[in-house]
Amino acid sequence: MTRIALLGSTGSIGTQTLEVVEQLGDGYDVVALAAGRQVSLLAEQVRRWRPKLVSVADAAAREELRGLIGDSTRIVCGEEGLVEVATWENANLVVAAVTGALGLRPIVAALQAGKRVAPANKEPLVIAGSILMRLTREQGLPLVPIDSEHSAIYQCLRGEDPATIERLVLTASGGPFRGCALADLAGVTPEQALNHPTWKMGPKITIDSATLFNKGLEVIEAQWLFGLPVDKVDVIVHPQSIVHSMVEFQDGSVLAQMDDPNMRTPIQFALTYPHRVTSPRSRLNLAARKPLSFEQPDLDVFRCLALAYDAARAGGLVPCAMNAADEVAVERFLQGRIGFLDIPRVIERVMERCDHVAEPDLDALFAADAQARRWADEECGC
Amino acid sequence: MTRIALLGSTGSIGTQTLEVVEQLGDGYDVVALAAGRQVSLLAEQVRRWRPKLVSVADAAAREELRGLIGDSTRIVCGEEGLVEVATWENANLVVAAVTGALGLRPIVAALQAGKRVAPANKEPLVIAGSILMRLTREQGLPLVPIDSEHSAIYQCLRGEDPATIERLVLTASGGPFRGCALADLAGVTPEQALNHPTWKMGPKITIDSATLFNKGLEVIEAQWLFGLPVDKVDVIVHPQSIVHSMVEFQDGSVLAQMDDPNMRTPIQFALTYPHRVTSPRSRLNLAARKPLSFEQPDLDVFRCLALAYDAARAGGLVPCAMNAADEVAVERFLQGRIGFLDIPRVIERVMERCDHVAEPDLDALFAADAQARRWADEECGC
Repeated sequence: MTRIALLGSTGSIGTQTLEVVEQLGDGYDVVALAAGRQVSLLAEQVRRWRPKLVSVADAAAREELRGLIGDSTRIVCGEEGLVEVATWENANLVVAAVTGALGLRPIVAALQAGKRVAPANKEPLVIAGSILMRLTREQGLPLVPIDSEHSAIYQCLRGEDPATIERLVLTASGGPFRGCALADLAGVTPEQALNHPTWKMGPKITIDSATLFNKGLEVIEAQWLFGLPVDKVDVIVHPQSIVHSMVEFQDGSVLAQMDDPNMRTPIQFALTYPHRVTSPRSRLNLAARKPLSFEQPDLDVFRCLALAYDAARAGGLVPCAMNAADEVAVERFLQGRIGFLDIPRVIERVMERCDHVAEPDLDALFAADAQARRWADEECGC
Repeated sequence: MTRIALLGSTGSIGTQTLEVVEQLGDGYDVVALAAGRQVSLLAEQVRRWRPKLVSVADAAAREELRGLIGDSTRIVCGEEGLVEVATWENANLVVAAVTGALGLRPIVAALQAGKRVAPANKEPLVIAGSILMRLTREQGLPLVPIDSEHSAIYQCLRGEDPATIERLVLTASGGPFRGCALADLAGVTPEQALNHPTWKMGPKITIDSATLFNKGLEVIEAQWLFGLPVDKVDVIVHPQSIVHSMVEFQDGSVLAQMDDPNMRTPIQFALTYPHRVTSPRSRLNLAARKPLSFEQPDLDVFRCLALAYDAARAGGLVPCAMNAADEVAVERFLQGRIGFLDIPRVIERVMERCDHVAEPDLDALFAADAQARRWADEECGC
């Protein structure tokens, strides 16, 4: 029996995870839920899944939820609440789909408690990859990612010797501004940036897809998940989003995983791992699809991706600071307070101001995160 | 140490196999060679590899080779000679790259002698898949195919549970007549049919690629190699020949193997299996390639492919008779004695005349092969 603690249950990955669990049926149950402030949706989920433990953003949300679901379920809140859900004794799989750095402490706690973790948000690995991979190795547990690119690579590597990897190739749709010149991007509005051509996702990740910052996070995530130097992780633009990523081996052979753009396949793979389970979803029909094209990303236009490689090479606190700076900058962009091209500018400035520390612990990372947010606000002029 | 007995050393796969062995260097040696009548090339190969045993087509070729290489190497000939090379005690890997049905007895003998076999020619599996797979299972040896499509599937299936395969998808370049209507094909000349757009191969297999008969052989080969009903083996036309084949799993995920069109990667994979070994060959650069397109094959135009599905479903002697009929028909077509559309007509007529026998033994298969060749000559009007 797979008993799931779901962090981020009301988000895009969270709601799709519940749909997949529903389809899987016997053998899978949801035993604890954590969400933020979407209390009415969370109340519905509690009624359907009857978890023994639920966490929300804060005391106000807790009271609101209490009013909707009564006393049958224990309700906790805040980061402590997230950690409590992530370490809930009755759960054996933690699906971590909280946006941003907020997912880090709960994942660390879950790994320390010996839970298998399926990370859907990439920030924890970007910020603290060294710590998370050490914990994973110590516990001897598989860390099966839900991100479609990393799930693709994970699938391509089954049965293969990791020492024979020549490089990983992450595919990127290119976002709504693929092919644009730098000058085209100066006046981009939040509405334009939120109009992603192939994937339907939350607003933060959609903006990060438009800047290719999201791909940069994925490069760093891949570096940690698959234990490779970042220069063995390449990005190729693939507008049709059918090839979800690839592995090139030392003999020149390339394995790729394909599917229509959907998150349900990687979610299910992470839930049912190491098994594959029949899915009722429609199948990829390549003959009915547009031809699959590939192009090199322009790192001069999409500066965020180049910055991510820089951050990965610098290591230490820099990827953490980069991520924090982006969270602030994207929020300010969505508020209309900075321009689209200010996002990489703010990130780069914060990275330049960041201290160099070789093997930071969690406290140092959280301090760097907070400091980077202050610097980012300064750089935004807010 | 991998000590290779190479059947068909002067053909396209044979010469490329020797190049790969040369590149692999230490740990790989060629200890026995078999070829047909290309005696001067074979003599060069003997001088380079110094095998202890060589086989040629017949006594005349043996005397010719003797004149070129002297008495240092034992020279045998005919089908007996092929079997002797395939069972040469000093070899532990038999690369079977003899065109057509001629490869069958040597492969059976090699398997019975406990040798690992890497089949490059598909006809033996098409004719006697049931017998070959039983021998392979009994010996507990992997049968790693060299055909690029089957190598692709073999690679995609590593680490996967075969019970979770939903279907295999073999890619086909479509050959030089992709998109043609039936009427366009009536006047096709051997020169036109030999002009394959992406693969450089021998004449028989090039014609079989133009008719899609070769893809039909591959469908039957895949059925046996991967133990699936033929209706779980699909074909998709992919003119760029970059995706070498795919596996669709029950969860909807598709794994594909890609590479530039070359036989060296699958040859090397079969030689070094289960390991992957660094290759000096150039790497696939998808951004420099044309977009990858896919289309359904037209089974009304490319009748040979539809006939192969019929033969696979009928089983028994029918695939053997189908293959024999094609060998005769292609030879007659290359001689200018029948037209391009006569090839499927001859095959279909021979299949109709074929007896139905449930589990034929080798003798019954060879008798059916001979009978089918006579019928095919009748149907050709020769």
